[in-house]
Amino acid sequence: MDTLDDSGRDRERKRTIVWDDPQINKRDAVSAISGLDYLRSIRDGKISPPPAAKLIGYQLKDVDYGFAAFELHPGEHHYNPFATVHGGILSTLLDTAMTAAVLTTLPQNITCSTVEIKVNFIKPVTAESKLVRCEAKIIHSGRKLATVEGRIKGGNDELYAHGVSTCLIFKVN
Amino acid sequence: MDTLDDSGRDRERKRTIVWDDPQINKRDAVSAISGLDYLRSIRDGKISPPPAAKLIGYQLKDVDYGFAAFELHPGEHHYNPFATVHGGILSTLLDTAMTAAVLTTLPQNITCSTVEIKVNFIKPVTAESKLVRCEAKIIHSGRKLATVEGRIKGGNDELYAHGVSTCLIFKVN
Amino acid sequence: MDTLDDSGRDRERKRTIVWDDPQINKRDAVSAISGLDYLRSIRDGKISPPPAAKLIGYQLKDVDYGFAAFELHPGEHHYNPFATVHGGILSTLLDTAMTAAVLTTLPQNITCSTVEIKVNFIKPVTAESKLVRCEAKIIHSGRKLATVEGRIKGGNDELYAHGVSTCLIFKVN
Amino acid sequence: MDTLDDSGRDRERKRTIVWDDPQINKRDAVSAISGLDYLRSIRDGKISPPPAAKLIGYQLKDVDYGFAAFELHPGEHHYNPFATVHGGILSTLLDTAMTAAVLTTLPQNITCSTVEIKVNFIKPVTAESKLVRCEAKIIHSGRKLATVEGRIKGGNDELYAHGVSTCLIFKVN
Repeated sequence: MDTLDDSGRDRERKRTIVWDDPQINKRDAVSAISGLDYLRSIRDGKISPPPAAKLIGYQLKDVDYGFAAFELHPGEHHYNPFATVHGGILSTLLDTAMTAAVLTTLPQNITCSTVEIKVNFIKPVTAESKLVRCEAKIIHSGRKLATVEGRIKGGNDELYAHGVSTCLIFKVN
Repeated sequence: MDTLDDSGRDRERKRTIVWDDPQINKRDAVSAISGLDYLRSIRDGKISPPPAAKLIGYQLKDVDYGFAAFELHPGEHHYNPFATVHGGILSTLLDTAMTAAVLTTLPQNITCSTVEIKVNFIKPVTAESKLVRCEAKIIHSGRKLATVEGRIKGGNDELYAHGVSTCLIFKVN
Repeated sequence: MDTLDDSGRDRERKRTIVWDDPQINKRDAVSAISGLDYLRSIRDGKISPPPAAKLIGYQLKDVDYGFAAFELHPGEHHYNPFATVHGGILSTLLDTAMTAAVLTTLPQNITCSTVEIKVNFIKPVTAESKLVRCEAKIIHSGRKLATVEGRIKGGNDELYAHGVSTCLIFKVN
Repeated sequence: MDTLDDSGRDRERKRTIVWDDPQINKRDAVSAISGLDYLRSIRDGKISPPPAAKLIGYQLKDVDYGFAAFELHPGEHHYNPFATVHGGILSTLLDTAMTAAVLTTLPQNITCSTVEIKVNFIKPVTAESKLVRCEAKIIHSGRKLATVEGRIKGGNDELYAHGVSTCLIFKVN
């Protein structure tokens, strides 16, 4: 059984992840409802988040047309060999928020995928950072491509990382 | 209890991660031994991999001066809302391999951190990809900065993603 | 002799560039005065712009702590094989503005150089775009590294390109 | 009148650029012939290079399916405020070579444009570098998108800059 201390760290150095059938997410995210409706359903707990959200532990907090915000409680289980949160975890958070921001603008049967992402790491995140928030907003949305930017900040508005991404927009057949 | 099928996927949609004290990794990765000796110890099972390696599930397979290769069995637990491996997981794999390639060139008390990473996603990875391998090699190594590139490929040499990264090299005080 | 029409285009398809000794620029930009004073002197016409500014034809219009704005009259002489302004010209404009924004924060004998730049091209620029403006502002400025972003826009606020860059900050010996 | 010395530098700090109608280039590059035939015609002097090539001064030297190499004599007219070749000039050279490498793979009426470019600057180029060569080759070419990499090197194989780029491939209507 998990016993978490104040910093959100598992004193037992063990964590159990449980997830749901990702095909249900796929159906909703891509075809059944619009991107914005899908994300609102995730935010409101009506749809279970995809497996990666459970694995990494981030949560969708706010979503609007062209905008998405996710939060993460950084913990020791996210650590790289330097005992700070792995940059890949921060990249995952940025990719998640930036793709979500694009998804908010897409109707049913139109979806997107990340063509490329670019992340700058400004300051290490540790379990002592307690909670980080990643906000993403669209820079430009075209017919085939969209660009989007995101920033990860801590409690007192300090910047941990920022990124920019290009997404391909396409019809689902 | 975990029951894994052939593809490394958990049929029960549950996964338990166990890790070790990351401060031990930090001491070895940064100060106690050279970067190459640290990584060889990880590869040979003499040092426990850092928590993020346990969380994501990648393993160091090959390491040499200026080079590192990691492998990952992609599974459903890595999936994004589109039922493919989250791009952030691939970014994590690339960041891990690219940083390791730089670390191989650094003596004791000299370490590095990723300044920025740029990843292009070419083809989706799924559990059916079975095993992906990420190889990274240094492009240029200077006194203050190094640049490094990496590629993620599948069994029959198909390209899934590629990246480039800039690392800052610095003395540990 | 040059004969320019309304769009800033040389009807004779000939252009003569004249520049001044770049060592004078170097002395002022790096050592003699602060970065902000150097750039203000360029803006006010007290120091001749560096050769690349004459070659490409951009001009510094506004400068403040952490901020710089340059303008360019796009012309046929900037064209690539597709008869639009070469992306490299837009990258040059972004690099110029972003580096200038970092330079504004640096005192005498501290300078910077671009480690890497990343540019997204949104919409082609042509001579018909008449005038484009590139604004850059610092995202984060540290002791060794700074990150900065820039956008190129046209008259009615339409976005042509945006970029982000990492600069190394160092003492001049 | 221009007086050029051995290094291609204008001792008088004056340079006159002459170019041809870019619409002729556009017709050939996009529609009249395949990308490879267009570039071979440029290389062999049968088609005049586009204006930007004249402005910056680079020349196509080698071209093959998925590959292109351009050369540049760096001069004082390329200098930034730090009396080295402006990074934007190097970005232009990389963008040119990388786009050309993609163009070599495209038939008539199919063309490409740069979605985004990322350049790392390794070592300053000066007039003393005499001649730099930029080689680009395709990493992956898909139906809608291609990725390509390039490197700028000097005489004794020293690396000045490297880049990666994403191109959009599309039919010309």
